[in-house]
Amino acid sequence: MSIRVGIVGISGFGGGEAMRLIAGHPAFELVYAAGEGSAGRRLVELFPGVPPRLAGLVVQKWDPEALPELDVLFASLPTGSSAEGLARVPAGVKIVDIGGDHRYVDGWAYGLADVWPEQMAGQTRVANPGCFPVATLNALAPLLAGKLIEPGNIIIDAKTGISGAGRGGADSRFSYAGSNENLQPYGLLKHTHMPEMATTIERLSGGKADGLVFTPHLVPMTRGVLVTIYARGQTTTEQCLDTARQFYADRAFVRVTDQPPQTKWATGSNLSFVSYAADPARDLVIAMGVVDNLGKGAAGQAVQNANLICGLPETAGLEGAPVWP
Amino acid sequence: MSIRVGIVGISGFGGGEAMRLIAGHPAFELVYAAGEGSAGRRLVELFPGVPPRLAGLVVQKWDPEALPELDVLFASLPTGSSAEGLARVPAGVKIVDIGGDHRYVDGWAYGLADVWPEQMAGQTRVANPGCFPVATLNALAPLLAGKLIEPGNIIIDAKTGISGAGRGGADSRFSYAGSNENLQPYGLLKHTHMPEMATTIERLSGGKADGLVFTPHLVPMTRGVLVTIYARGQTTTEQCLDTARQFYADRAFVRVTDQPPQTKWATGSNLSFVSYAADPARDLVIAMGVVDNLGKGAAGQAVQNANLICGLPETAGLEGAPVWP
Amino acid sequence: MSIRVGIVGISGFGGGEAMRLIAGHPAFELVYAAGEGSAGRRLVELFPGVPPRLAGLVVQKWDPEALPELDVLFASLPTGSSAEGLARVPAGVKIVDIGGDHRYVDGWAYGLADVWPEQMAGQTRVANPGCFPVATLNALAPLLAGKLIEPGNIIIDAKTGISGAGRGGADSRFSYAGSNENLQPYGLLKHTHMPEMATTIERLSGGKADGLVFTPHLVPMTRGVLVTIYARGQTTTEQCLDTARQFYADRAFVRVTDQPPQTKWATGSNLSFVSYAADPARDLVIAMGVVDNLGKGAAGQAVQNANLICGLPETAGLEGAPVWP
Amino acid sequence: MSIRVGIVGISGFGGGEAMRLIAGHPAFELVYAAGEGSAGRRLVELFPGVPPRLAGLVVQKWDPEALPELDVLFASLPTGSSAEGLARVPAGVKIVDIGGDHRYVDGWAYGLADVWPEQMAGQTRVANPGCFPVATLNALAPLLAGKLIEPGNIIIDAKTGISGAGRGGADSRFSYAGSNENLQPYGLLKHTHMPEMATTIERLSGGKADGLVFTPHLVPMTRGVLVTIYARGQTTTEQCLDTARQFYADRAFVRVTDQPPQTKWATGSNLSFVSYAADPARDLVIAMGVVDNLGKGAAGQAVQNANLICGLPETAGLEGAPVWP
Repeated sequence: MSIRVGIVGISGFGGGEAMRLIAGHPAFELVYAAGEGSAGRRLVELFPGVPPRLAGLVVQKWDPEALPELDVLFASLPTGSSAEGLARVPAGVKIVDIGGDHRYVDGWAYGLADVWPEQMAGQTRVANPGCFPVATLNALAPLLAGKLIEPGNIIIDAKTGISGAGRGGADSRFSYAGSNENLQPYGLLKHTHMPEMATTIERLSGGKADGLVFTPHLVPMTRGVLVTIYARGQTTTEQCLDTARQFYADRAFVRVTDQPPQTKWATGSNLSFVSYAADPARDLVIAMGVVDNLGKGAAGQAVQNANLICGLPETAGLEGAPVWP
Repeated sequence: MSIRVGIVGISGFGGGEAMRLIAGHPAFELVYAAGEGSAGRRLVELFPGVPPRLAGLVVQKWDPEALPELDVLFASLPTGSSAEGLARVPAGVKIVDIGGDHRYVDGWAYGLADVWPEQMAGQTRVANPGCFPVATLNALAPLLAGKLIEPGNIIIDAKTGISGAGRGGADSRFSYAGSNENLQPYGLLKHTHMPEMATTIERLSGGKADGLVFTPHLVPMTRGVLVTIYARGQTTTEQCLDTARQFYADRAFVRVTDQPPQTKWATGSNLSFVSYAADPARDLVIAMGVVDNLGKGAAGQAVQNANLICGLPETAGLEGAPVWP
Repeated sequence: MSIRVGIVGISGFGGGEAMRLIAGHPAFELVYAAGEGSAGRRLVELFPGVPPRLAGLVVQKWDPEALPELDVLFASLPTGSSAEGLARVPAGVKIVDIGGDHRYVDGWAYGLADVWPEQMAGQTRVANPGCFPVATLNALAPLLAGKLIEPGNIIIDAKTGISGAGRGGADSRFSYAGSNENLQPYGLLKHTHMPEMATTIERLSGGKADGLVFTPHLVPMTRGVLVTIYARGQTTTEQCLDTARQFYADRAFVRVTDQPPQTKWATGSNLSFVSYAADPARDLVIAMGVVDNLGKGAAGQAVQNANLICGLPETAGLEGAPVWP
Repeated sequence: MSIRVGIVGISGFGGGEAMRLIAGHPAFELVYAAGEGSAGRRLVELFPGVPPRLAGLVVQKWDPEALPELDVLFASLPTGSSAEGLARVPAGVKIVDIGGDHRYVDGWAYGLADVWPEQMAGQTRVANPGCFPVATLNALAPLLAGKLIEPGNIIIDAKTGISGAGRGGADSRFSYAGSNENLQPYGLLKHTHMPEMATTIERLSGGKADGLVFTPHLVPMTRGVLVTIYARGQTTTEQCLDTARQFYADRAFVRVTDQPPQTKWATGSNLSFVSYAADPARDLVIAMGVVDNLGKGAAGQAVQNANLICGLPETAGLEGAPVWP
């Protein structure tokens, strides 16, 4: 069986990773790629190592009215620029939006695939969680569902590799000389990812996610997200680990580790690592989550969601082990 | 006037940075260098770019009974290995211990030079703060002294470049392939730097530093420390900034910035950057501190302390602007 | 069909990459892993992201007399340490030696798989080329076979990521702080890789490879080899490119590009990029070759050779596109 | 004595490094800074760690007719954009042009300061050599002057950190994600730096520099240039080293080393490292040169040249040891 898929936003990092994963997928066939600046170029010009059967595919100017016959469309466009176009995609084409425009938007399912995989069945419009949110929520979900921590007063100290900021144009924060050997906090007390996280925390806990704090940092590495989360609760490290192991017992991609996870453990994969350290004497729980921001944080989870809405095994095309070192 | 100084631990990162700073110092003359594995080698073999007048200085086997005539000795030895030897150094030789053995030890002054410079006058035994503590305490001191935050329930999410871990031997955490493109939390809920920080917080605030949380992370860069600190208090960003500007008004090395500081701002310098973001609605204060772990976090502050105990201007030899990019 | 394979040297970089590739291979089943320091540990302790079906495999102490039933053994041991043990492996077990002990040794085939794939048929002992040699020889083979360049007076300026030097122990050349932001030439006018390259150049050209010059450099990146080769010949850029395109027309893994190849094009893959620039007015040909030192330069080509000696398609398990960025 | 200096191009990497060096210079006083995009901003906004006495200096729109009273102007503008403006600078203002517009241009002295320092006396218009040329020429000068190598058929394999390409705007070659973990050859058989090198080689040798080959590579590090040069000559390693040691016996900044130099040896300094390996049996000489592209390769040598034309010691303000690690 071949499922015809397309990617819009092919020249971005998320689109490129989607291409890589689809190229190795047993059921998906890439028949369409679209972009803006890259329109008219062949895939091999963008990705010199692309498999030969895809090398000659010509990138199209993105036009939702001029799609070929497609089963699934992956969209990886900058936040703010996908809503208008995707609204015009024919209803018969399933969409997974890696970008930020449709998270908790009516008519779109929120694709937190390791927590609520069953909610994907039958969906045709899926909003992929952001990279910081998925790292955070996969780590918190077992504790919130198990009432081990309070949903309020959660502090998320988040760190991402530079590709997490997208291709970034001329901004010196993303230039090599500006970001190498540099660690940059940004966006303090701002809220881009907050509503998505707060809403999900409330869904998981049934309580209010007030007092949520989120501080992102740019780390001088290409890929990888680590969140270090400080929450309140009367529990122990072992209880947190056990709860998470049970919560994810049937899930293919979440690894519960008793050592603090490192970003490189996930590089190039759809894996999600979670770990915990708790001190009941201080009413303190530290939860940690690691993902590859382009894997589980973007294209990996998008393929996982596409598998689920197409009735495939969720692991199809996603079984590769991480690249190390 | 020439002040005769020596360094023990010359081949470590802290010792090497001390050498660099002393080589450019207007009053200090390096007349003695000691080490273990490097004994018998000339400085130029360890540091190919050393100034010619120091190139031929031969590293001695560390022996406190065989010192030449010295005014000041800088010690930069691994924690646990300096106490015994330094106890045998003649009383007439002033010591600044960059290592961790003498912090809050009787007979040793704690050299938090930007906060308590006046306490250095007349000292002959100074314990240099650790790199995480100085970044943290310089950021917190104005808020604690000004009662803007509570001394309890402080969470310190700390990030360091790899040189912060010392030369590190064969540990793969410090190898290039193991640490590049990797972000590694470690030592969760452990306490190496905690007593030093808790004691100082209590001195500054007059209250109890209970509930202190400290989580260090290894970041793939050579130099730099950033601490992102979460505290409780009813204040505003502007009030925090103003308080810090007043607190450090007469200090040469602390820069209070309204933008989140980046580690690269301090590279190669003795500067300390602090900034704040507060949200009274959430009873939240975020304090940030940046230092170069080998500058203000080690050799820079050691030279600053040596200046103070020798009656020199605290800025002598430390006025170089950071290296950027 | 399942082919039972083992890896000795599992905790090294080459062994780890072999594990990753075998885990995704359609016919190979990993049933044995051996090492020295890692003996007794489960694979998941070495590789936190290993697929669950391999997680519990326990690393054995390397003992050629205590092998389970195996079809193929991959050996990835430091040069000098594999010859003795591999000589005791039963004849019925095919061996691909990623290490350096058996290159151009009697009884062992030299597995330059993209140039001489047909020579692999029926072999049971294959010596994998080194990472510098395969990058070099894949670039030179078409020109030498086509008599476009002279086999003498070839200068190879070679650059490798730090993992090319192996795990490296405590050598500061491989530490993060010693090698980051550093570019290090080494081993000038020494000859470790020279005999292997000279012999192959002579086989390809029928002439003498005298005057060969090889200068390696350590580059601050984890993976990747680039060789920039200067040779003499009366030809043009287009003629070189055309000759290479014909030479590799039926090969799956070699990409001939008209742009200078970048190391990141190959990361995580078994691809080999070659390109050329020639100036007949100066009797000059520049040949460039790029490989991932752990892919085509080690485990990738080893799997390719194993495929060939097992009668599988050479691409089995190796079709993954490179990881970018 | 205070010498009033200005910088045009303050926000570029070369201009920023000039600012850093002038800030620490015993005789130069920075009284003027000009730029394009940065006009109107205070220096502290561009350089958060700038010394307080310079923090408030406001960047001017570059206008050669509106200069304050100046003794020396440092120009660090992109190649092609300085000639017109600098022609309008009053004759009484000495100029050191770090950019590429005036190298071997009538009326401008070529400031190869370690080779021809005496030629700087009395000059008022100095063209600073490029970073690749100075690394190359400092390494070759002793051999060419001593007739140890032929001036023809010289091959220069050159490697630079990313800052060597300037701030670079939106070009993905200079983005973090595009250049990290990547090694990129570029500009093959092109000639930007060639005339400057060929002319100097001919001046030094008295012969023809035909057949010169120059291949630059972008290396994933911020600072540093290494050139590995292949030349022809009947000599020995020792003879090359001795010749260079004599040639540079009275020079402050050139270090002749018997080990291959590493780029990090020079970081942040005005040093130039040269080394050699020769094999008379193959008529081969390998010369190596290392500089910091922003130090000796740009602002460091510019300050050195300014010292010389102002009659100061050439080392004024340039004595700082390299930053390591």
